[in-house]
Amino acid sequence: MKIHNFSAGPSILPKSVIKEASKAIIELNGIGLSLLEISHRSNHFTEIIEEAKELTKELLNISDDYEVLFLQGGASLQFYMSALNFSSTNGKCGYIDTGTWSSKAITESNKLEGETIIIASSKDKNYNYIPKNIIEKKNLDYLHFTSNNTIYGTQYHSFKNILNHYPETALICDMSSDIFSRKINPNNFSLIYAGAQKNLGPAGTTLVIIKKSIFNPQTTHFNKMHLENLKHLPSYLKYTTHIEKSSMFNTPPVFSIYTCMLTLRWLKNTGGISAIEEKNRKKSDIIYHEIDRNPLFEGYTQKDDRSIMNATFKLKRPELKDKFEKLCTQRGISGIHGHRSVGGYRASIYNALDIQSVNALIETMQELEKIR
Amino acid sequence: MKIHNFSAGPSILPKSVIKEASKAIIELNGIGLSLLEISHRSNHFTEIIEEAKELTKELLNISDDYEVLFLQGGASLQFYMSALNFSSTNGKCGYIDTGTWSSKAITESNKLEGETIIIASSKDKNYNYIPKNIIEKKNLDYLHFTSNNTIYGTQYHSFKNILNHYPETALICDMSSDIFSRKINPNNFSLIYAGAQKNLGPAGTTLVIIKKSIFNPQTTHFNKMHLENLKHLPSYLKYTTHIEKSSMFNTPPVFSIYTCMLTLRWLKNTGGISAIEEKNRKKSDIIYHEIDRNPLFEGYTQKDDRSIMNATFKLKRPELKDKFEKLCTQRGISGIHGHRSVGGYRASIYNALDIQSVNALIETMQELEKIR
Repeated sequence: MKIHNFSAGPSILPKSVIKEASKAIIELNGIGLSLLEISHRSNHFTEIIEEAKELTKELLNISDDYEVLFLQGGASLQFYMSALNFSSTNGKCGYIDTGTWSSKAITESNKLEGETIIIASSKDKNYNYIPKNIIEKKNLDYLHFTSNNTIYGTQYHSFKNILNHYPETALICDMSSDIFSRKINPNNFSLIYAGAQKNLGPAGTTLVIIKKSIFNPQTTHFNKMHLENLKHLPSYLKYTTHIEKSSMFNTPPVFSIYTCMLTLRWLKNTGGISAIEEKNRKKSDIIYHEIDRNPLFEGYTQKDDRSIMNATFKLKRPELKDKFEKLCTQRGISGIHGHRSVGGYRASIYNALDIQSVNALIETMQELEKIR
Repeated sequence: MKIHNFSAGPSILPKSVIKEASKAIIELNGIGLSLLEISHRSNHFTEIIEEAKELTKELLNISDDYEVLFLQGGASLQFYMSALNFSSTNGKCGYIDTGTWSSKAITESNKLEGETIIIASSKDKNYNYIPKNIIEKKNLDYLHFTSNNTIYGTQYHSFKNILNHYPETALICDMSSDIFSRKINPNNFSLIYAGAQKNLGPAGTTLVIIKKSIFNPQTTHFNKMHLENLKHLPSYLKYTTHIEKSSMFNTPPVFSIYTCMLTLRWLKNTGGISAIEEKNRKKSDIIYHEIDRNPLFEGYTQKDDRSIMNATFKLKRPELKDKFEKLCTQRGISGIHGHRSVGGYRASIYNALDIQSVNALIETMQELEKIR
């Protein structure tokens, strides 16, 4: 039976990528060695990581002022690293609280000396919407937000509201669950980071896109003292360490980076960001249409803020739970349990998920309607 | 042509492990999903990580007072994390400097408030020996050392000298390049860490073995203030975070941990630590015997401190370089270039390397002797 993988992450990857990754573990490009056995200093690997960086820049249309890094520790380490590198002594750091991941970022910022200010929040309705009211604060060191909230299924469909309120502020964005899913302008940001395990590849590496000119004394918005302080940060936690060493400060996660590179190649070959965005919009339209049409289900989030990556929904009649989940198992629908903070269901429909799988889910929802 | 992989890391893995890892990428245990697509919260993965932890404990004979963690960021992040968690305000931290990796650990410790004290060093002879003279300092917060120095090819053959001088001190050891290669007593240590990419598996995860009772107010040697300070550390950088979350604080590197588990299974099935130690001693005896016998070569390190994992040697007549390296290429000898800090050659002979590969290298050295 075909399994339709709606897992929230680690999640579905393209079949061709899986096949090629499996092959490279036996032998990489006919070199007589497994991908797992090559030195990260070998040309074999430097070509792989360079291609992964170049594809990232090309697909997202990133200017040369940015460095693409492949690090470790996930968004969870980036929560602290971003605050550590961007917050100044006695500074103020702005955060938009749109749920679990934003809150974790806020927790790490609170451990530093600067003041952490929540400039917008949707906590009042258990994060089922994107907050539109943004408090304006002068001279923020930076403003941090999460573009897509995997757990709640909300997403910024535009960053205009934020850009209008904070046109001069360094923007930091956690794009873990929607990077490479739709067109964005990365050049609006000082820092973007994303755990790989949704649209980019397997778990094990974190993509970081960072504006290099902020570390250049001639072009930086940081004050002198801040630039000096940065020098004394722990080596692994300094972005400049990884920029200088081209992601090779420590042994990089070779396999994860290789598989990300394959996924980016696949993305390019299937039409790039605009084609995948069209596919993702089509898939999410189908799901949300069914959620709204089917009298047994209801969506969790406000309609305007629905994510095109994670569709969250509930059964209107909880007593149908066992029946629905049995149908799902019979039809190979896998990984749709909602996160414990929300309950119900969540269909994660990342880039590699085909429309056929979405249709299989819709048919299951419709079958429940027929047989209940 | 068979390639004999003497790479210093990432390095050779058992053929059976490579085959099984490749297969699991296509489909894990007949579940209809790739290893790369499963949720890290699924039973499929929790069984994998639990088996990896249990095998680590069993093979190394670790008591129940220790937690086995699989983290990210390599030894490079552990240099800072270990100092951050173990050093107290106004405390003194002891380090033994045996080369590049020790020095990097010292650099990170120096970024913290406590005093960093070098209690022994072999820097005077470019780290070609293990220092026997150890300065005794009272009340160290901890003592950090590196058990095997990959770059220089030196290794502690016993920890007795350290234990005699510091019987009461918390010992921290970077065992990146010799863990699982020989019998040790992990219960002598408060913390052991090791990047996976030598004897344990592919790059992408860091094994951490940490004594849990040091965080228990009833049994700890830390003072009250230190225990209180620990609570406020950045979440990712606190060992207690990862202990509490069983290595699942953030999405773990699923593939790397799976492949480590396979390698540990292989190690157990081939006879465990005592059998692999015998094999490793045999391999290193063969290499060092040839280095000493062959008039064209000389070893880099003092004989008493030679590593059974990384044999470093040089050509006595540098003009033979091209000839020797051509012979190596012809015979499939790969990855034996020495690190730039030492020059010459380095044969890394980790667990998965067979005696046949060592013999192939010896024959190449002997052929040079015949044809020069």
